[in-house]
Amino acid sequence: MARQLSGLAGTLYEGIKDAPIVSPHGHCDPAWFATNAAFANPAELLVIPDHYVFRMLYSQGVPLTDLGIGVAPERRDPRRIFQILADHWHLFLGTPSATWMTYVLEETIGSDTPLGPETANDLYDQIAEWVGNPANTPRALFDRFDIEVLATTDGALDPLDDHATIQQSDWAGRVVPTFRPDAVLDPHMQGWADAVMRLGRLTQQDTQTFPGYVEALRTRRAFFKAMGATATDHAIEMPNLCWLDAPGAVFDQLMAGDMTHAAAFHGHMLVEMAQMSIEDGLVMQLHAGSRRNTNHAIKDAFGRDMGADIPVPTDWVRGLEPLLNRVGNNPDLTLILFTLDETTYARELAPMAGHWPCLRIGPPWWFHDSAAGIARYFDQVVETAGYWNLAGFNDDTRAFLSIPARHDLWRRSVSLHLAEQVDRGYFSKSSAEMLAGLLATDLARNTYKLG
Amino acid sequence: MARQLSGLAGTLYEGIKDAPIVSPHGHCDPAWFATNAAFANPAELLVIPDHYVFRMLYSQGVPLTDLGIGVAPERRDPRRIFQILADHWHLFLGTPSATWMTYVLEETIGSDTPLGPETANDLYDQIAEWVGNPANTPRALFDRFDIEVLATTDGALDPLDDHATIQQSDWAGRVVPTFRPDAVLDPHMQGWADAVMRLGRLTQQDTQTFPGYVEALRTRRAFFKAMGATATDHAIEMPNLCWLDAPGAVFDQLMAGDMTHAAAFHGHMLVEMAQMSIEDGLVMQLHAGSRRNTNHAIKDAFGRDMGADIPVPTDWVRGLEPLLNRVGNNPDLTLILFTLDETTYARELAPMAGHWPCLRIGPPWWFHDSAAGIARYFDQVVETAGYWNLAGFNDDTRAFLSIPARHDLWRRSVSLHLAEQVDRGYFSKSSAEMLAGLLATDLARNTYKLG
Amino acid sequence: MARQLSGLAGTLYEGIKDAPIVSPHGHCDPAWFATNAAFANPAELLVIPDHYVFRMLYSQGVPLTDLGIGVAPERRDPRRIFQILADHWHLFLGTPSATWMTYVLEETIGSDTPLGPETANDLYDQIAEWVGNPANTPRALFDRFDIEVLATTDGALDPLDDHATIQQSDWAGRVVPTFRPDAVLDPHMQGWADAVMRLGRLTQQDTQTFPGYVEALRTRRAFFKAMGATATDHAIEMPNLCWLDAPGAVFDQLMAGDMTHAAAFHGHMLVEMAQMSIEDGLVMQLHAGSRRNTNHAIKDAFGRDMGADIPVPTDWVRGLEPLLNRVGNNPDLTLILFTLDETTYARELAPMAGHWPCLRIGPPWWFHDSAAGIARYFDQVVETAGYWNLAGFNDDTRAFLSIPARHDLWRRSVSLHLAEQVDRGYFSKSSAEMLAGLLATDLARNTYKLG
Repeated sequence: MARQLSGLAGTLYEGIKDAPIVSPHGHCDPAWFATNAAFANPAELLVIPDHYVFRMLYSQGVPLTDLGIGVAPERRDPRRIFQILADHWHLFLGTPSATWMTYVLEETIGSDTPLGPETANDLYDQIAEWVGNPANTPRALFDRFDIEVLATTDGALDPLDDHATIQQSDWAGRVVPTFRPDAVLDPHMQGWADAVMRLGRLTQQDTQTFPGYVEALRTRRAFFKAMGATATDHAIEMPNLCWLDAPGAVFDQLMAGDMTHAAAFHGHMLVEMAQMSIEDGLVMQLHAGSRRNTNHAIKDAFGRDMGADIPVPTDWVRGLEPLLNRVGNNPDLTLILFTLDETTYARELAPMAGHWPCLRIGPPWWFHDSAAGIARYFDQVVETAGYWNLAGFNDDTRAFLSIPARHDLWRRSVSLHLAEQVDRGYFSKSSAEMLAGLLATDLARNTYKLG
Repeated sequence: MARQLSGLAGTLYEGIKDAPIVSPHGHCDPAWFATNAAFANPAELLVIPDHYVFRMLYSQGVPLTDLGIGVAPERRDPRRIFQILADHWHLFLGTPSATWMTYVLEETIGSDTPLGPETANDLYDQIAEWVGNPANTPRALFDRFDIEVLATTDGALDPLDDHATIQQSDWAGRVVPTFRPDAVLDPHMQGWADAVMRLGRLTQQDTQTFPGYVEALRTRRAFFKAMGATATDHAIEMPNLCWLDAPGAVFDQLMAGDMTHAAAFHGHMLVEMAQMSIEDGLVMQLHAGSRRNTNHAIKDAFGRDMGADIPVPTDWVRGLEPLLNRVGNNPDLTLILFTLDETTYARELAPMAGHWPCLRIGPPWWFHDSAAGIARYFDQVVETAGYWNLAGFNDDTRAFLSIPARHDLWRRSVSLHLAEQVDRGYFSKSSAEMLAGLLATDLARNTYKLG
Repeated sequence: MARQLSGLAGTLYEGIKDAPIVSPHGHCDPAWFATNAAFANPAELLVIPDHYVFRMLYSQGVPLTDLGIGVAPERRDPRRIFQILADHWHLFLGTPSATWMTYVLEETIGSDTPLGPETANDLYDQIAEWVGNPANTPRALFDRFDIEVLATTDGALDPLDDHATIQQSDWAGRVVPTFRPDAVLDPHMQGWADAVMRLGRLTQQDTQTFPGYVEALRTRRAFFKAMGATATDHAIEMPNLCWLDAPGAVFDQLMAGDMTHAAAFHGHMLVEMAQMSIEDGLVMQLHAGSRRNTNHAIKDAFGRDMGADIPVPTDWVRGLEPLLNRVGNNPDLTLILFTLDETTYARELAPMAGHWPCLRIGPPWWFHDSAAGIARYFDQVVETAGYWNLAGFNDDTRAFLSIPARHDLWRRSVSLHLAEQVDRGYFSKSSAEMLAGLLATDLARNTYKLG
């Protein structure tokens, strides 16, 4: 279904469409590659884990339980769930979900049956058969997708057993962890104090004291790095960083249950993380601006990440000043910023990345990882930040099958953008060819030190 | 003057340009259709009521009184007013006002005389003659415009006598009221307490008490519904909704003149309105983000709605949470959001409408109801919200003659957008044809329950 | 390298590309034209003064000192600095700096050697030779560039000796000053109280009292006006203007070192400036929304204006109300607003300029003075503000050689925009031709009273 790119855009696309996939940030489950078990069925593969899909269905009146969400796997009816998707497939017209799904069905699964109410049953059978084929296990797909490296995202307390299993296996696929310590850094996270204590046991540090806590984090980072990690990742609703004069006293209060300075402490710890990144070389990622769990009833009934996280305005300039003025001139730091507030592209992120040596602008994220979203991104960041202050592409997905589809959408968008730039007289065709390769793989590889 | 659409855009436009007009929200005066009196003259028809026109002229030094504003009708010189418009017509180059006016003159009035300083006198005569022709009375025009339904906007205390007259007449045109209770919901509105007392007399409820006040509102909604209303409409500068624990106590304070909690009370009452919408099925509209009457001298001399209402940043996410967490998961509620802050399209409204079952995104409003404004709207909302979470089109005008012009501009913009989507490979031509009809009429009809 | 414009855009461009340059706001040094000394060398001409260039290089790890910044001129190695620029020239792909630099090298200097690592040495020699040629002195270039008028920006205490020298010379070039009194209006500026005292000595007013201070400012404005100024210019981070009841008491506090009300005083003084503009006819410019010196280490080591000024969200509506409600309806005032927050184009500035008689929207500024930035500007302001509420173009540069390049980029962008408007059916080709001339020169000339 995707457009046939013509002219220079087509030429540029031809040059990068088959490049290997570098996936430096995402949410695939390492267990898939550790166990290499076949995916369960079409609904578990394409509907239930995809929050883009179920949020749209929910917005048009489909109860989440009808989609198997909040339902024990053994009580789900995958064929019925797939039928519901098909019955509502028109809702996705014009969305990237339609582009990704179509790519998956046509290119990855190889079906020429269009998705729709009448074809759902037949298509379900085709996908089920495909899923059951040993040629389509996670590892086989990883290899066939030509994934050069895939980073997962893993809690600070995760033992990384699946990663160990992968590394000790005879399979050559490169799957690396990413250190995501939100649960031990953000005192507002449920069970924070317990997590801090577990962190202590895991690292044999006394995390009842601030120095022990900091040392435990340093230890954990070293473990992740030893397991192949090249990056950390951090989520925060508002990036209001700060540097506390007496973080230890605040830590003690928090451990005693006094949450007064919880937000400031979280902001402080992100600066500590940046300092550790200078020490250990882990690239730091900051994802900010999502107001989580705005639908309380859904949160209570189904838990987190159920489609009710909504972006809010984000003040990167004032919010990052404490970090930047502490470590931002240090060329050993790489800090990648991800925003959901597109107004900050031209106003804040491009000017900041075009000045601070440590900063890179992450690719369009979440709701903006789409053809028009990518076009707005290039339109608004390149003139001030250039291309080398960008971080390349992330697929940032937990929908494994959509990875090639997402990289393909990015590569098409890159090709269209660069062809337009050449048409505008900004640079030559040979520069565009060089930039296409840069944006398709090299920037991600280099920014994340995955070369 | 409008562009000849070619290719697929032209084909799509041909398919919808003659569809009936569904006008679910606007500010036409029902008295026009009750009395069916001819419009007075070209200035009263095309200049004096059009705040888009007089604000631009004022910005370039034309005193409002020169345009008859703040001048008793009998002391106005309509020919002179029309000449002033013509003398400054170049100011409107590039604005939707030029597109609308040109459409009205060419298509509706049927003149081929271009508007300009030299032609004003002649054109004035042509329009005056046209206005005086019995074929051009309000009802005749309503029928000729092929208006399927037209919603007016009416204060909660309005007796709806004109609507009754229309319904009791032998004319078949469908004109329905809309319940707009700002004057009795917002304690900051001048004369609020008096209006509340009049509300009591009108409904035979004791509106000196909060329960009586609420019941009176319920009664009024039922009356509007009986008179054909399918929707309510609410304006608020900042959508800071809330749910008060003791709204009755706050109501008592307010009635006693203590305005301390006026804003919170207004926010609370909008949640009450949403709850009543679930009961009675009236669709709820919320227009937010306009800072009213920023020019105090103009307000003092000429009153409200004189061109000095200016948009401000709007926080939909936090502002609506109290309403949404109370009633937002109820599929019986339809809440249409209108913004003047385009930064919220992609960041807030599309993600919200793509999750909450009750939400629909209203069409581009006021300053954004223009070709580029509509293009930005589609670019920024569709990828996340799809098409079915939109509310179709509103003309939202008090300039009756401009209604076909405004729908035509929307339909052209829809056709251009959909053709571009097909060109991008997002969906097929047949999907585009289906979506064209959806956007031209069906979405408005269905969202507003006007089918 | 710039695109060959075709079709109507090409025709429109042909009609304005050779129009004289009207430069009503910028930062050229009047000493260049007073002394008419040759520029020093390629690095001093093209690298060291250009903050667009050195900020990008710094962002990619080039120390500022390597570029001669913070280094005494006699210790700089200009050939080495130029080589560094050339070695990193790829970083500028897609930025307006590349467009400007290429224009300067090709069109102004007349070299056909592309900039790059291998060619830097040769190109350096070519530019050095060109710089040393008496045909390329500042005055000769000014004439060859066909600059009709060039405004500089000058502190309130500046004796304007260079301007006097120019005026008394036999050279006919028109260089006018602009009154920029930030240092004496903003108590947060370092050395404010001293500057106020110097202002007193310069004007023979007692600036230890508020009335004397105000009179001194009035006197200084008159001096600037007598020296040819037609405008004032003001920078403020947040445009939070206000009107104090007792500004004299606040002034006394500030002079005594109590900074409590410093921001309010600055806001008040800008309203005083607007009032004086009504008296003396000087056009008022307001540049707001830049957070200055966000990189403290760079500020401490190298001073101000070193690339770490970053835009922040700007609230024009509430911020300007005190000024507008005091003097905004007075047609004798012209107030030009410059924003770095593009979200305010459609939401705030266009609606405001489309109402208030005093307001004009300044052209895209700083990070937005680029092809895509200009396209976004027209897209977002014209439909509501029209063209006559704009202020034409500013090059706003301290890089003298880039002036023709910047006006050329603007004129190309204007031509592309207008051709697209004609293609959309908004207005005729002859209207577009008229508007091209308006935007290229007439609007700037008229808005700034430079006719």
